[in-house]
Amino acid sequence: MFQFKKQHPDDATNPWKTHSVEEPYKNPWIRITHRQVTNPSGGPGIYGVVHFKNVAVGIVPLDREGYTWLVGQYRYTLEQYSWEIPEGGAPQGSSTLASAQRELLEETGISAQKWTPLLELHTSNSVTDEYGVAYVAQDLSFGEAEPEDTEDLHVRRVPFQEAVDMVLRGDITDALSMVAILKTNEWLRNGTLVL
Amino acid sequence: MFQFKKQHPDDATNPWKTHSVEEPYKNPWIRITHRQVTNPSGGPGIYGVVHFKNVAVGIVPLDREGYTWLVGQYRYTLEQYSWEIPEGGAPQGSSTLASAQRELLEETGISAQKWTPLLELHTSNSVTDEYGVAYVAQDLSFGEAEPEDTEDLHVRRVPFQEAVDMVLRGDITDALSMVAILKTNEWLRNGTLVL
Repeated sequence: MFQFKKQHPDDATNPWKTHSVEEPYKNPWIRITHRQVTNPSGGPGIYGVVHFKNVAVGIVPLDREGYTWLVGQYRYTLEQYSWEIPEGGAPQGSSTLASAQRELLEETGISAQKWTPLLELHTSNSVTDEYGVAYVAQDLSFGEAEPEDTEDLHVRRVPFQEAVDMVLRGDITDALSMVAILKTNEWLRNGTLVL
Repeated sequence: MFQFKKQHPDDATNPWKTHSVEEPYKNPWIRITHRQVTNPSGGPGIYGVVHFKNVAVGIVPLDREGYTWLVGQYRYTLEQYSWEIPEGGAPQGSSTLASAQRELLEETGISAQKWTPLLELHTSNSVTDEYGVAYVAQDLSFGEAEPEDTEDLHVRRVPFQEAVDMVLRGDITDALSMVAILKTNEWLRNGTLVL
């Protein structure tokens, strides 16, 4: 079974040198550092890094009938609507599992007895340090959704295969959702995961 | 066959209102805007958006023997080494295919006769507007790699199934690489793609 291994040892020495670090911007979710660097070829340069205060957390809920749940919302950054797996953020150093459990409950009203670590990823490593994880949630029970006030969410229960088809057709474009759905599909096919 | 459809119509009205936009930081790759907003519930808030000047472009090269190529580099943002598909950036509004062709040649020395649009994605849509695409490259011919001077790259030719296993084991954590490899695997399995 897959285990998160965020702290894997570096298998190479850092070929960049950092000479100065400024912080031109921060808010409750991100901060920006601007750096004077020497690049791997020995030349001078700058690097702007977007640091995330939260770990991205995604959940693939699966019931015994082979259905999953998708959450739709208007994404301010993209100026477009996006269908995704339930997602949220866990403050750095806090339990990603506890955040996953809270987000699934808030967004869909679902509680789950069985939680399986599915994947870890870096969403955009040329500019950001954002790290994300996803879980598969099974043995589900159902209550009332309680979205946060910044969220205007729609929730759909769909056959898991329909979620896979939405990824393959390009109707789901959120990276964490795409990876989580495709890897869950691999696991269902190879028997790592059983409904 | 999958087609990019970036310009899909919004299927919902924007529930956010933007009252002011400042730009506290920019560099040649990103700019940050800080906004005073009203959120979907009607409450006041702020939003910091990271705007990307380039489209992320990834390439899955496949030869007739079923091998692909991975590129390893130390990622400054993560302070760790990362194995990925060949990737680069296309300035907004320019040809992503031309960038894919140039990046594959620069990083691996490979030219390809057949290019198939594989996917589009948004890497991190809660904070950034980053958009990415990937292509499958086939009918390959081989020359000399010419990496940019910010790059200290290692290149490996591996069986495509080994790349899939690296994703499933968590040894590849770059989101665009993960999605591109898993979707290519689906296409090879369902016959959309033939070696």
